[in-house]
Amino acid sequence: MDMDKLVALCRRRGFIFQSSEIYGGINGFWDYGPLGVELKRNIKEAWWQDMVRNPPPGPDGQEIAMVGLDCAIIMNPQVWVASGHASGFADPMVDCKTEGCKGRFRADQLAASTCPLKPSKAPGQHDKCQLTPPRTFNLMFKTFVGALEDDSALAYLRPETAQGIFVNFKNVLDTSRLKIPFGIAQIGKAFRNEINPRNYTFRSREFEQMEIEFFCHPKESMKWYQYWRDVRIQWYTQLGIQSDKLRPREQGKEELAHYSIGTTDIEYLFPFSEEPQELEGVAHRGAFDLTAHQQHSGKDMTYFDDQTRERYVPHVIEPSAGVDRFTLAVLCEAYHEEKVGDEMRTVMRFHPRLAPIKAAVFPLVNKDGMPEIAQKLYRELKRTFNVFYDDKGAIGRRYRRQDEAGTPYCFTIDGQTLQDNTITLRDRDTLKQERLPLTQAAAKLHELLKP
Amino acid sequence: MDMDKLVALCRRRGFIFQSSEIYGGINGFWDYGPLGVELKRNIKEAWWQDMVRNPPPGPDGQEIAMVGLDCAIIMNPQVWVASGHASGFADPMVDCKTEGCKGRFRADQLAASTCPLKPSKAPGQHDKCQLTPPRTFNLMFKTFVGALEDDSALAYLRPETAQGIFVNFKNVLDTSRLKIPFGIAQIGKAFRNEINPRNYTFRSREFEQMEIEFFCHPKESMKWYQYWRDVRIQWYTQLGIQSDKLRPREQGKEELAHYSIGTTDIEYLFPFSEEPQELEGVAHRGAFDLTAHQQHSGKDMTYFDDQTRERYVPHVIEPSAGVDRFTLAVLCEAYHEEKVGDEMRTVMRFHPRLAPIKAAVFPLVNKDGMPEIAQKLYRELKRTFNVFYDDKGAIGRRYRRQDEAGTPYCFTIDGQTLQDNTITLRDRDTLKQERLPLTQAAAKLHELLKP
Repeated sequence: MDMDKLVALCRRRGFIFQSSEIYGGINGFWDYGPLGVELKRNIKEAWWQDMVRNPPPGPDGQEIAMVGLDCAIIMNPQVWVASGHASGFADPMVDCKTEGCKGRFRADQLAASTCPLKPSKAPGQHDKCQLTPPRTFNLMFKTFVGALEDDSALAYLRPETAQGIFVNFKNVLDTSRLKIPFGIAQIGKAFRNEINPRNYTFRSREFEQMEIEFFCHPKESMKWYQYWRDVRIQWYTQLGIQSDKLRPREQGKEELAHYSIGTTDIEYLFPFSEEPQELEGVAHRGAFDLTAHQQHSGKDMTYFDDQTRERYVPHVIEPSAGVDRFTLAVLCEAYHEEKVGDEMRTVMRFHPRLAPIKAAVFPLVNKDGMPEIAQKLYRELKRTFNVFYDDKGAIGRRYRRQDEAGTPYCFTIDGQTLQDNTITLRDRDTLKQERLPLTQAAAKLHELLKP
Repeated sequence: MDMDKLVALCRRRGFIFQSSEIYGGINGFWDYGPLGVELKRNIKEAWWQDMVRNPPPGPDGQEIAMVGLDCAIIMNPQVWVASGHASGFADPMVDCKTEGCKGRFRADQLAASTCPLKPSKAPGQHDKCQLTPPRTFNLMFKTFVGALEDDSALAYLRPETAQGIFVNFKNVLDTSRLKIPFGIAQIGKAFRNEINPRNYTFRSREFEQMEIEFFCHPKESMKWYQYWRDVRIQWYTQLGIQSDKLRPREQGKEELAHYSIGTTDIEYLFPFSEEPQELEGVAHRGAFDLTAHQQHSGKDMTYFDDQTRERYVPHVIEPSAGVDRFTLAVLCEAYHEEKVGDEMRTVMRFHPRLAPIKAAVFPLVNKDGMPEIAQKLYRELKRTFNVFYDDKGAIGRRYRRQDEAGTPYCFTIDGQTLQDNTITLRDRDTLKQERLPLTQAAAKLHELLKP
């Protein structure tokens, strides 16, 4: 699949726009258009439903206890001292001193970076550049809270949603009557001042995360690590990432963060890269985070098990997914070009649960009472589903437009409808059309969209 | 209603926590706990469903065309030059030079501000203070994008979601086949560096907005202004703000922004203030925003009507609501203390659509097979609804806990269930209990929660 074609489709059909495009954009920031916002909403809603409201049964068939949380993006800066981000969340950076280049690169990614002096734009060609020695560059965006702009007012935009969960661990425990094991889930924006944002929305400076921190007894932590790894891989598969491009990869010992007992990256082979790239990390973080916050805040972060009379700092399993990355993988996976009769069609084969528009309603022609019947069906369906009404152009073109939007079902009101009250239902993927009674359209759509 | 009691309940039951509480908090930032996040999600979902997916018919009974958008929080800073925020979005600020005070106040709110030197903490007592002359203070949070921290890298956290819609007006128009009139809707975070954050979550520095920009022909703009004003007032009423505390107020000429033809503030009388406070502003903004962006960007922001062959800059009606403010109003409106028998109960009378937990399931006692039946019902219901299982303590206490969480319905499995397979359904507000067959519980809950 050609990445340029996907980017063009996303722009043309209103999935993704460059942020502030009329002002020349801003590097590393993206806006989601009418189709994109629905796709992203469906992804977040599916995650919340499948992971928070109704997660799969545990390793022993037990209920999984999960609650949600929604924390502020700007937190007390001590949070980032305790987490290690204030001192350690940095990339090594080099500058090219050559006139005409003056580029800034990540020292560890020089081989993959493009030199602006090379018209070919092939990566790794920095032979003409004079590079400075590497310097560290903290990736957190800074701001000042209050009227003063000094160190006392310094704050950061969170680089991950996870820490909001850790600092609220006791609050949730004290107010929710939960017993370990349980998970806290959060969806929200995070920000990283990437030196080189790239690969479309994959590495952007503002992005959205879906994170779970699952708290468990240290002795059971490997069991839960495996549970969440399996659950998360299965989730992607269920939502249509069926291809061999999805690859879970256990990090080697040399890659692991110093505190991590094990991490599995769930990767996807995007068209812009020869190596699979991370969609989600499922990390066994041990007791690292709660212990760090216990030390820095002086607050007790232990859990007391009133059955076993044991007090301990829970271990944490963290399945941390990127909303924008999964959205991009869904777009890549859905994109297909294929021959239909004598024509080529571009079709986005979204899983029906994720499709931005669930169904379109067409009157075959704009006369003979067809628009009235179609409008009535449209109004009925839109009470429950995101549906689209289109009466412009030949029916074939209308189908093609819905194919590009990834709409799984189209209902058409035609001449026969006027005689026997049946309509056609056209399937995006099989292209088959079946007739069904108009009165059964809503029930049929319900059935087709049942998870 | 006593504000302190509500704040205590919100803390105790996990609706709202101070952000970064274990580090002493951070002034003007709040976190939503397990119940709060569900309440807020339900509010945003209700707005999206009722305003974007299926808005009420227009003034002439017509379909209303609406699409969504989701823009980046950090945009090209030129956006804020064009909108006027870079130069004009400022409050006048005074400092008190008196030793021991050194307070910072909004000059226009001195009468309502508390002087730290007065132990009584009564507002308006600044007679001991020596105040500096007022200075302007821009309310936008600043940050730097990229590796340099100079003017070329300066960017802002958006102080409103609206401008993201305006700068994407043409993108949406070009990709969505929409014709005027139509609306673009967005939900997202915004940030204002308030000098004095106050009144709990009402005036915070990080907050969430639900905004619509509705684009129409200038000659029809007053009709649409009235439509949206009515629709938005009705929406609050439908969702349970039934009391006389909800007050729409047309701004006087002297209050209006210079470009606004008319603005209605939809206000709510919160317990912390003697004057009603703004939940939402419905503003007729004329052609101000699109014209400003047309001038600054040099891009064409006109609309061409291919039926009338007319080209014009559309007028805009902006219903702009605060998610956190409405959430707070819902909490205030729901809070009730009342006598039940010999006891007092605290009950949150949320509209069932907004209630964080839709139903609770209780086994009367933890034996005789009751827990198994209750667990089975719980698992069935949680596939669709956010439900809560509780088997701890006397049944009366369990009801009280759900009253405080605002759960509208409780199902109890008791001795009779074992004999005739019926269970009780208890209504939060009427306190009435009815028996129904266990097999009908899910259908009954569906029916009760139908919008």
